[in-house]
Amino acid sequence: MIDAQINQTPHRVVIVGGGFGGLYAAKALGRTPVNVTLVDKRNFHLFQPLLYQVATGSLSPADISSPLRAVLSDHQNTQVLLAEMLDIDPEEKKLTLSSGEVDYDTLIIATGVKHHYFGNEHWETAAPGLKTVENALEMRRRIFLAFEAAEKETDLEKRRAWLTFVIVGGGPTGVELAGAIAELAFATLRKEFRNIDTSEAKIYLLEGMDRILPPYKPELSAKAEKSLTKLGVTILTKTLVTNIDNDVVTMKQGDTESQIAAKTILWAAGVKASPVGKVLAERTGVQLDRVGRVIVEPNLTVKGYPDIFVIGDLANYSHQDGKPLPGVAPVAMQEGEYVAKLIKQRLKGSENAFPFRYVDVGSLAVIGKNYAVVDLGFVKLSGFLAWLTWVFVHIYYLIEFDNKLVVMIQWAWNYFTRKGGARLITGNESLGVVGINEKGEYYVPPTKKSPLEVR
Amino acid sequence: MIDAQINQTPHRVVIVGGGFGGLYAAKALGRTPVNVTLVDKRNFHLFQPLLYQVATGSLSPADISSPLRAVLSDHQNTQVLLAEMLDIDPEEKKLTLSSGEVDYDTLIIATGVKHHYFGNEHWETAAPGLKTVENALEMRRRIFLAFEAAEKETDLEKRRAWLTFVIVGGGPTGVELAGAIAELAFATLRKEFRNIDTSEAKIYLLEGMDRILPPYKPELSAKAEKSLTKLGVTILTKTLVTNIDNDVVTMKQGDTESQIAAKTILWAAGVKASPVGKVLAERTGVQLDRVGRVIVEPNLTVKGYPDIFVIGDLANYSHQDGKPLPGVAPVAMQEGEYVAKLIKQRLKGSENAFPFRYVDVGSLAVIGKNYAVVDLGFVKLSGFLAWLTWVFVHIYYLIEFDNKLVVMIQWAWNYFTRKGGARLITGNESLGVVGINEKGEYYVPPTKKSPLEVR
Repeated sequence: MIDAQINQTPHRVVIVGGGFGGLYAAKALGRTPVNVTLVDKRNFHLFQPLLYQVATGSLSPADISSPLRAVLSDHQNTQVLLAEMLDIDPEEKKLTLSSGEVDYDTLIIATGVKHHYFGNEHWETAAPGLKTVENALEMRRRIFLAFEAAEKETDLEKRRAWLTFVIVGGGPTGVELAGAIAELAFATLRKEFRNIDTSEAKIYLLEGMDRILPPYKPELSAKAEKSLTKLGVTILTKTLVTNIDNDVVTMKQGDTESQIAAKTILWAAGVKASPVGKVLAERTGVQLDRVGRVIVEPNLTVKGYPDIFVIGDLANYSHQDGKPLPGVAPVAMQEGEYVAKLIKQRLKGSENAFPFRYVDVGSLAVIGKNYAVVDLGFVKLSGFLAWLTWVFVHIYYLIEFDNKLVVMIQWAWNYFTRKGGARLITGNESLGVVGINEKGEYYVPPTKKSPLEVR
Repeated sequence: MIDAQINQTPHRVVIVGGGFGGLYAAKALGRTPVNVTLVDKRNFHLFQPLLYQVATGSLSPADISSPLRAVLSDHQNTQVLLAEMLDIDPEEKKLTLSSGEVDYDTLIIATGVKHHYFGNEHWETAAPGLKTVENALEMRRRIFLAFEAAEKETDLEKRRAWLTFVIVGGGPTGVELAGAIAELAFATLRKEFRNIDTSEAKIYLLEGMDRILPPYKPELSAKAEKSLTKLGVTILTKTLVTNIDNDVVTMKQGDTESQIAAKTILWAAGVKASPVGKVLAERTGVQLDRVGRVIVEPNLTVKGYPDIFVIGDLANYSHQDGKPLPGVAPVAMQEGEYVAKLIKQRLKGSENAFPFRYVDVGSLAVIGKNYAVVDLGFVKLSGFLAWLTWVFVHIYYLIEFDNKLVVMIQWAWNYFTRKGGARLITGNESLGVVGINEKGEYYVPPTKKSPLEVR
């Protein structure tokens, strides 16, 4: 299949997506006699597990991002291309990118997922999700503008709506957001306002299943629930959101319908596959699952196309225990490294047929400032020790040393002071003030466009 | 004038603007029996002297910003209001803010300046200036997108235009931008591209006067010029920009007209007063200077209105040496502290008539990674020692401890590695890729709006 011996030019590997899957594949191919092209829409790798800390004002985007070119600059065989994948011709082994066409011998697709509103995409405006840096800055803006608006609001009912935060979805992201907002309201911001008492804020965490952190062991869910409740978060399980409209969340618990008036509604409830999955299905006939993920073969290839791999969140890999692997960073990393190894074997003409096996490294979620739940398989932890484990794991995996050091210091500083220095309300020029109009609604003045947009 | 003894309510000081002037006034009034209200459009103080490092990807916005509420949280007599000043009634002593009306007994206006195109405001789109966090992120985006576009461009002439950077204005900001971009092109990014040699970049610094850093001593200008030239920057003095259009800068040296084709043009050539100055002039009849700054009395008040102070860049103070004080942070800080002292004296009924005197603390500019020029009055320095002085002074004044520490580590890290980790291209969702269209022009797709804008 691979004939580097015959061709004069080295084998060309194209990787689409610079997340955990794509980047780990690229890194593992760094010292291999292949030409690697890493294609990404953005010029940086984003450490998504910490994105909630950008949203809640503890870290800056650059603290959890690494420029892809910097990460890969020592790999002479690797080039980075800032482009978007638009189409594929799997017979001709050719990709159409926004910047032109590119040929591949082996293709690795790792374009991930985005958030998903289960057919209610119009909720996005009212309840933004958290997948990109821009998402995080939007959440940050809303969270801190809400306190600012409450400070100025004299109508008590409206003020209460500004001080009410609803997080939809009780997975790790929702739990972490709820805990961080509780820390803000009940600790960080308490001394800083004169007209409002920020500790009157209400923070709701809504979950459709019967417990938060449903993929985790029940005892960890229970501990997380207890700890979040102690922090001041109201947890509503078995609760389905039926509508989001006019700053009101409508929900159902069993047959009981109820409503919460809240100005800040954050979405952490579901993901769907990147549109690249659909393109791939159209061109190769590969099957997609319910949320558009590509159902892959035991060796992570697309059925009938052994030179096309799909890894990371975009892949639905069900050949282990029968249920799909979770969409978490360790799965993507291991898949990237597995594929790189397979390509190296093929180059040597010695492909072994071992399917991919995920080695479970455990699951964790942080709750507030110094509490976490961790399940490492052989041991379950909760509390401060779990938090330290969480800190260590995240620092360890932040790809570049500078990020690690800076984040560690930011965390240490935040830990001792609770100051949260990265809570800038940014965006359009004067969004700080004009972000809320006299009716108490968000808006951006149409005249205040960035020069880039005007051009 | 001040009759706190008679009134039951404490004397109300309203400060408009949380830059160096306004914030230092607020801090100095912290333990005084007055009510202080600090009004700002943004929720953070911005350390503007380091903004060029955000534009060139060395620091994050939060590294050089401090939330105003956090800085002032210990001042029980002080409240912060996120609002914009729209109008003033100096007879009724009343301000109209975007959030409503507010009464004052003493008013301090410190709304600063913005960049200025001397009647060619339409140049802003092609040549953005550097005053806000958003400006800096826009510059960052353009600088790094230019290298990305050059990497993809096959037409040699177009590629050359992407690799050409023109900085208009040879003051400290222009010098610092030129030096930082030279470091990027000739050091930081060199190993990271495969199709282009970033060291082929051309960086032009245009200055209308006969030397760069015109306000400084001539020998420092000469040293800065020599050092910038050595870094690879082409300096054109006595050069006036006559047009900016279609990625071409047209300029005049004496009678000779010439042009530079450049995709990235950055503006560091002039400032004009914030519009608040004009409002004040209309309501009080106070005189404005050529660029709209308020001509203030020897005690920094508005003529005929001893309860209205104007400080910082917005003030034109010419009672010392006959020429206006420069628009730099130390002037604003000292003015803020002077006004606070004067208010305290008035409260005690013991106002002394000493006019404001600026104590010159010197001037400095940094050139590239480890070279600066510093004039402390009693001693002039250039080179590495000057750079260390510059580092020390800036770290010292970064208002909050966490910023100081983080910035120090970022700098140390950048110093030893030249990595420049904060070079994220951000903005709209996928601006990274769609920021440049197939014609090689900047654009933002109209459909990719932030949820906030859609709302």
